[in-house]
Amino acid sequence: MKFTLKHTDPHSKARAGEMITDHGKIETPIFMPVGTVASVKGVHQKELKEEINPDIILGNTYHLYLRPKTQILEKAGGLHKFMGWDRNILTDSGGYQVYSLSENRKIKEEGVKFKSHIDGSYHTFTPESVMEIQRIIGADIIMAFDECTPYPCDYKYAQRSMHMTHRWLERCIKHLETLPYKYDYSQSFFPIVQGSTYKDLRRQSAEYIAGVGAEGNAIGGLSVGEPADEMYAMTEVVCEILPEDKPRYLMGVGTPINILENIALGIDMFDCVMPTRNARNGMLFTAHGTINIKNKKWEDDFSPIDDMAITFVDTEYSKAYLRHLFAANEYLGKQIATIHNLGFYLWLTREARKHILAGDFTEWKNKMVKQMDKRL
Amino acid sequence: MKFTLKHTDPHSKARAGEMITDHGKIETPIFMPVGTVASVKGVHQKELKEEINPDIILGNTYHLYLRPKTQILEKAGGLHKFMGWDRNILTDSGGYQVYSLSENRKIKEEGVKFKSHIDGSYHTFTPESVMEIQRIIGADIIMAFDECTPYPCDYKYAQRSMHMTHRWLERCIKHLETLPYKYDYSQSFFPIVQGSTYKDLRRQSAEYIAGVGAEGNAIGGLSVGEPADEMYAMTEVVCEILPEDKPRYLMGVGTPINILENIALGIDMFDCVMPTRNARNGMLFTAHGTINIKNKKWEDDFSPIDDMAITFVDTEYSKAYLRHLFAANEYLGKQIATIHNLGFYLWLTREARKHILAGDFTEWKNKMVKQMDKRL
Ligand SMILES: [Zn+2]
Ligand SMILES: [Zn+2]
Repeated sequence: MKFTLKHTDPHSKARAGEMITDHGKIETPIFMPVGTVASVKGVHQKELKEEINPDIILGNTYHLYLRPKTQILEKAGGLHKFMGWDRNILTDSGGYQVYSLSENRKIKEEGVKFKSHIDGSYHTFTPESVMEIQRIIGADIIMAFDECTPYPCDYKYAQRSMHMTHRWLERCIKHLETLPYKYDYSQSFFPIVQGSTYKDLRRQSAEYIAGVGAEGNAIGGLSVGEPADEMYAMTEVVCEILPEDKPRYLMGVGTPINILENIALGIDMFDCVMPTRNARNGMLFTAHGTINIKNKKWEDDFSPIDDMAITFVDTEYSKAYLRHLFAANEYLGKQIATIHNLGFYLWLTREARKHILAGDFTEWKNKMVKQMDKRL
Repeated sequence: MKFTLKHTDPHSKARAGEMITDHGKIETPIFMPVGTVASVKGVHQKELKEEINPDIILGNTYHLYLRPKTQILEKAGGLHKFMGWDRNILTDSGGYQVYSLSENRKIKEEGVKFKSHIDGSYHTFTPESVMEIQRIIGADIIMAFDECTPYPCDYKYAQRSMHMTHRWLERCIKHLETLPYKYDYSQSFFPIVQGSTYKDLRRQSAEYIAGVGAEGNAIGGLSVGEPADEMYAMTEVVCEILPEDKPRYLMGVGTPINILENIALGIDMFDCVMPTRNARNGMLFTAHGTINIKNKKWEDDFSPIDDMAITFVDTEYSKAYLRHLFAANEYLGKQIATIHNLGFYLWLTREARKHILAGDFTEWKNKMVKQMDKRL
């Protein structure tokens, strides 16, 4: 992978960059739609490409390992071919999902034993096995196996966990060296900074991760319930240490406002289930604030969903019609809201990029943050 | 509405025709996808138009009356505008849905009192109220209010019910005369032949209905559980009596084979939830038989869903991928299967039309019926 910084905002740490992989270009800042089990829920690959148009999407190793399982993905020739997506894919390491299983997993130095949420069967993820799985899935960017700590997290626990994540990282790297690429393209490996909400731990972890010299670096363990200010404080501390000439990925973040604020702190890549999950609950993000489309106030509002017309759904359907679909529990409602929200998120990061390149990012960002912090 | 017969098959009663309404042309034979509550479940209007391409879809008066309710449809300027569909729409009269409520409805001469399946509230449909509702919904073709008898049905009950349906028809017609069109286009009214599976009753009803001189005629009360042969026998008897120069609509039918056999008996229009409902259960219709995509045998079959490539889903996704989506309960699976099945149904009726026009319908029909009667 080749990463080039195109421009850095003079009034913030915001950067516009470009990554080139064997599956094409990724213009940063970028938001990666989450395609959990080889599908961005309710969205055809064609719509994803033509309407939402992300350079990269995300798949979840935990989910793909359980279904369709690695044997099927291997027979298919990797996830790209299996799902019919020829642009970039990033897979997480399963660390976050496994951590979310709470009582159904046991974390040890060797790895994590967990119980499948589907059939209750027991499985073990180790740094080594997760690298093997990610080689088979075949994403363009693969992630280190880490422990994601909860919020709040006891200092001692966060410190011990961070060191284990570092030891796991060594094992990931050592094992990857023994595993050639499975397909006819390369994979970039990103390690993950942990350290909960403790600045000294975050600094220590960022230095350790920076020292690895990876092609890109990620920040994990945020967006787990901490106040936005604590998240921003951690991002700031870590971005000061992570190398400038490598992409920085903030995992699992966040609201449109979180994204703009973190771009301002030097983050290049984001992913989050919020635009898709909230869409399925009838919550729309727009440049002028959020809409709860289930609200009775939209019942006879025949104006377009969003006159910004980012995707076809914005003008082809009215608020009243979308409200009706949610009231009648018609799945088309979830499909429309999902396309709208993802379209908006991708518009937002593309627009951020434009303003970084134009040199007026901070001004624009401050206006947008104010504007988006409303309920319509 | 203007209906023109283009060609009649020399070896069967199959006809190729053309209806012209204020919303455009309807080439017959036609299958009308069912858009119950102002949405063909899981399909964007754009996909419906560009991929499936029907000249007409169906809406359900019962469902639309309950949600979004007539007041909203009236404010929207009718169902076409509300849902963003500028081609033809036909609405049923609610007779079938109300009959399906079984213990939650009471049929009297005046009309039917029923309990909403949504909130348990009580409502009454009369021939007059249903005409008013259909004026407000604003479909291009609206249906008489009838009683749909169950199968099997006692002769006396079927006879009494048929006569009530005839009396209701008089009331529909009389009331419609007092109700001007609500929008800037006209509506055609179709009466419905009943009479259960009794040939003499069917003949009597067909003669009564033919005598009304409507712009088109429908056959109801079939596809309610009777063997296919009884259905065909009734269609045959009725088609002999219904006027040749008016379109004939067989309500609620059926499998691809049922459709071809009924086209051979002189039917022009069909609707059925089967392609959409079965799609959501993982059953695909193809020219070579049916596929249960949930079956483990498709797990590693990476061939296209259907190499006939009628819609984009057929070649953009593999059987293994679609099988995975069903196994993982991902809604995209239902969306794909729905587009495939509707695409196939519309292909089938378009293809039937071509063969009627070419003069080799019967030969083709016999081949197709044999071919489609398989499980892959
Ligand atoms: Zn350490
Ligand atoms: Zn009678």
